[in-house]
Amino acid sequence: MRGVIMEAPGVVRVVDREEPRIIEASDAVIRLTATCICGSDLWPYRGVETTPGAAMGHEYVGVVEEVGSAVRTVKPGDFVVGSFFFSCGTCDICRAGFQSRCVNGGFMSGEIGTQSQLARVPQADGTLVATPSMPDAELVPSLLAASDVLGTGWFAADAAAVGPGKSVVVVGDGAVGLMGVLAAREMGAERIIAMSRHADRQALAREFGATDIVEDRGNDGVQQIRELTGGLGAHSVIEAVGTQESFAQSLRVARPGGHIGFVGVAHAGVTLAMDRLFGGLVHMHGGPAPVRRYLPDLIDRIWNRSIDPGKVFDLTLPLDQAAEGYLAMHERRAIKVLLTP
Amino acid sequence: MRGVIMEAPGVVRVVDREEPRIIEASDAVIRLTATCICGSDLWPYRGVETTPGAAMGHEYVGVVEEVGSAVRTVKPGDFVVGSFFFSCGTCDICRAGFQSRCVNGGFMSGEIGTQSQLARVPQADGTLVATPSMPDAELVPSLLAASDVLGTGWFAADAAAVGPGKSVVVVGDGAVGLMGVLAAREMGAERIIAMSRHADRQALAREFGATDIVEDRGNDGVQQIRELTGGLGAHSVIEAVGTQESFAQSLRVARPGGHIGFVGVAHAGVTLAMDRLFGGLVHMHGGPAPVRRYLPDLIDRIWNRSIDPGKVFDLTLPLDQAAEGYLAMHERRAIKVLLTP
Repeated sequence: MRGVIMEAPGVVRVVDREEPRIIEASDAVIRLTATCICGSDLWPYRGVETTPGAAMGHEYVGVVEEVGSAVRTVKPGDFVVGSFFFSCGTCDICRAGFQSRCVNGGFMSGEIGTQSQLARVPQADGTLVATPSMPDAELVPSLLAASDVLGTGWFAADAAAVGPGKSVVVVGDGAVGLMGVLAAREMGAERIIAMSRHADRQALAREFGATDIVEDRGNDGVQQIRELTGGLGAHSVIEAVGTQESFAQSLRVARPGGHIGFVGVAHAGVTLAMDRLFGGLVHMHGGPAPVRRYLPDLIDRIWNRSIDPGKVFDLTLPLDQAAEGYLAMHERRAIKVLLTP
Repeated sequence: MRGVIMEAPGVVRVVDREEPRIIEASDAVIRLTATCICGSDLWPYRGVETTPGAAMGHEYVGVVEEVGSAVRTVKPGDFVVGSFFFSCGTCDICRAGFQSRCVNGGFMSGEIGTQSQLARVPQADGTLVATPSMPDAELVPSLLAASDVLGTGWFAADAAAVGPGKSVVVVGDGAVGLMGVLAAREMGAERIIAMSRHADRQALAREFGATDIVEDRGNDGVQQIRELTGGLGAHSVIEAVGTQESFAQSLRVARPGGHIGFVGVAHAGVTLAMDRLFGGLVHMHGGPAPVRRYLPDLIDRIWNRSIDPGKVFDLTLPLDQAAEGYLAMHERRAIKVLLTP
């Protein structure tokens, strides 16, 4: 089968890989209907923590081909959505809703890789959720978004305690930030302020529910957000970048007692000044999103056509052109690229 | 009147200060029944952010002498307990329960200073809580503890989402950590692990409700806590130190999805590694404790003699011997020193 490998920074190749098969009784093998490139895939593409030869891709929807003997909740022929992190669903951590740190879990990229035609999904019962039936083609991008980018934005909004009547600032206008805007709208936020400098992303943010756009960063951006939030800062901040600057910015725009939900992947060397955090008197929660917790609800909302997160894909390419997809995202010509295997 | 001034690092003097009087209509002037020395007073004593000439002390209980014309909830003759941070009680931040960042508030130390015979309390209605009647003398230390050290430990436990059936680690065996132990017991925690190397503090921790003591820090300490918490780490961590090491330790002993409540004052230069926080998938909440939120409940519990936090004071001195009190705490000969004006 064909699959994407990161050979070196900036060098993505689509190669012939061995077809996956059932290894553990809890495995499933799925045939990908669609997959995509994640903002986090750009980190190794840009040379940060690059593992040469890594099998890329961790977002996926597809049809079950085969299941191991222990699998109970999905069967061959089912259309399924899964999280970027496989999880058993039965350990204490999973049962508390933090499946992205399952003690029996792991990342779907690296060895497995879902930018491919087929993929083995470990812990199928705890990882995959079947849709009610085969979806219409128009729903596929939205279901694919649920696999990571929507689930992650949703978690960020949940972690930021977004709710009716609240003000929300979204730091980062990438796909996850935009999904955070959509989640905030669905959770009933009153004011949703998207920080964005790009006209196309601003337009999509407005479409997803942003009530205000702030283009400036630093002191000017902070000042504008204070003015929009009664001088106090926002109740909720969604951090969707992961840099030193974006964390500092998030702290500065949250009101005392407010909540910061952070999902931008923080790399080694990024630090938070604890005196600032201490003085801020805020709540912080974040990390790799436990997408699996939200999947049943998100699939419902997509199935009922109450949300359309698939709009975040603004470029679709065949899997064999994955390299062009990476380049388009790296150069910011595309927000998020869908790949058809 | 007599009052404590920090002249320079290590140099505490009790001097004659001008008697406070009503300045704003919302002020009260109280005559101190008892005051004390806080662990945070040791920072400037040790040369960290020392302000020469600062009026020291921010914990207090006493009797109202006089009130401004706008004060409605306390009157001359009332015995009152107040927070280390004065607060209006009416702004959006106060009403959300974060009075320690009140937009009209401020610290009681620095200019006012409660290590003194009299003190002006701004925003008396939002700051002070009167007891049902004049307390028995034996209750005074406990009511004084509510003013900061108990309220802060209580907030830390609340911020760490302590509750029935949960495991709790308390990092730091100072007065605030010990109050965190007591709070965790009152909130129904199942297992309370105090990290302490001092026999006297271990004994007090056990008396306040600790079920386990861990003496080791670093890898050994982490390993022991893992063993005590089913290999997963604790549900709740109370951080009551404020150093780089204590924050890192707190992160390492919290389970994925767990909560860290931090109240150790973090000074400039203390940082948190965001990749560790990201990977930890924990909740963090902390800062200057909104003690005022908890005062009515804490006074109730003390009045009913269901808690006895006053035991944390292991040395009582006359106000004029404040310098010896600072030295005793600095040298760890005393956990917490009560001063009688």
